[in-house]
Amino acid sequence: MVTGNGLSIGIFVFDEAEELDVAGPFEVFAAWAQRSALHPHLSTFSWDGGGVRLAKGLRLVPDRSANDVGPLHVLVYPGGHGTRSLLADSEHLEWLRAMRAQTPLLASVCTGALVLAAAGLLAGRPATTHWDHYDELALLDPSVLIDTEARFVDDGDVVTSAGVAAGIDMALHVVARLESTEVADLVRRDLQYEPPAGPGA
Amino acid sequence: MVTGNGLSIGIFVFDEAEELDVAGPFEVFAAWAQRSALHPHLSTFSWDGGGVRLAKGLRLVPDRSANDVGPLHVLVYPGGHGTRSLLADSEHLEWLRAMRAQTPLLASVCTGALVLAAAGLLAGRPATTHWDHYDELALLDPSVLIDTEARFVDDGDVVTSAGVAAGIDMALHVVARLESTEVADLVRRDLQYEPPAGPGA
Repeated sequence: MVTGNGLSIGIFVFDEAEELDVAGPFEVFAAWAQRSALHPHLSTFSWDGGGVRLAKGLRLVPDRSANDVGPLHVLVYPGGHGTRSLLADSEHLEWLRAMRAQTPLLASVCTGALVLAAAGLLAGRPATTHWDHYDELALLDPSVLIDTEARFVDDGDVVTSAGVAAGIDMALHVVARLESTEVADLVRRDLQYEPPAGPGA
Repeated sequence: MVTGNGLSIGIFVFDEAEELDVAGPFEVFAAWAQRSALHPHLSTFSWDGGGVRLAKGLRLVPDRSANDVGPLHVLVYPGGHGTRSLLADSEHLEWLRAMRAQTPLLASVCTGALVLAAAGLLAGRPATTHWDHYDELALLDPSVLIDTEARFVDDGDVVTSAGVAAGIDMALHVVARLESTEVADLVRRDLQYEPPAGPGA
């Protein structure tokens, strides 16, 4: 349970981020903001604050830039094809490491975990990613303990989720962890989302 | 099975459309476009072609306007608070009836069904909407046969889905219907989406 107002959640958006990787957690956290006694504040941000074109063509205008996003409690890092250039961008990885040092919870969706791994943030830790990218994650950091069964892996200050839609499950889990399972279930019902019965393929 | 190229899918976006109502079907149909032998073409459009601010604050820039969207095979109508002003807008309802007459498949998500009902397009037909809005749908058109169990209702040329996340199930169903269950399952796996085991609450 987090106490106090002003719990801030930021979703990083970038060119070729996957649409549902962004919109799934966004929807969950925004619905939570309407329900919560904790008054979480949700925003989206891009590197330079400019609009982005997502992986399948949807164009988003974010709220702010990485410079302006301010301190976060939760940083959501989506996946998508755009992660491939980000994980090779040393300035970006340096920024991510600096954010990591001051953000209580770093949450990746899908291939967002590849960027976390490239930044060295998953070394020796359990994590997951999209089922079709386990090999890529292992190549980036062989010390990552890849969980091939979980919808998401909660390793305390880092939560990684499996592919695309699993970001919804991860976000609901974060709501349960930060507030309560009761509130997370209200959010789930608001969104008429039904969690999968078993491990996802 | 639809044959021939150029199958066109349009997602209508508007101020205060619900984020996941838009992004769920968008993601499914866009992933389908990458998989399909039918080469479906997906676009988003707003009434005037301008950017929209969705229900929880996400800002989208659509591909075109309602005037420019051209003939569609599938028109997706999302829900969200913005439907309340649209269902009272006679010019918009007239446009929707005209689209209906020339579009083989009209598919609503969540409270998008309210606008379809206001336009008279659900009269005497089975349909569904978000679980918290059955009464509102019945008030708009008492002749609608509301299915309170289904994730989506396929009534041939009109498919309506339950709340928010149920739009993902509806879109996967449309893919199965227009191409095949095999391709729909490939798309589902790409998105690592697990359909619910039973009726959604």
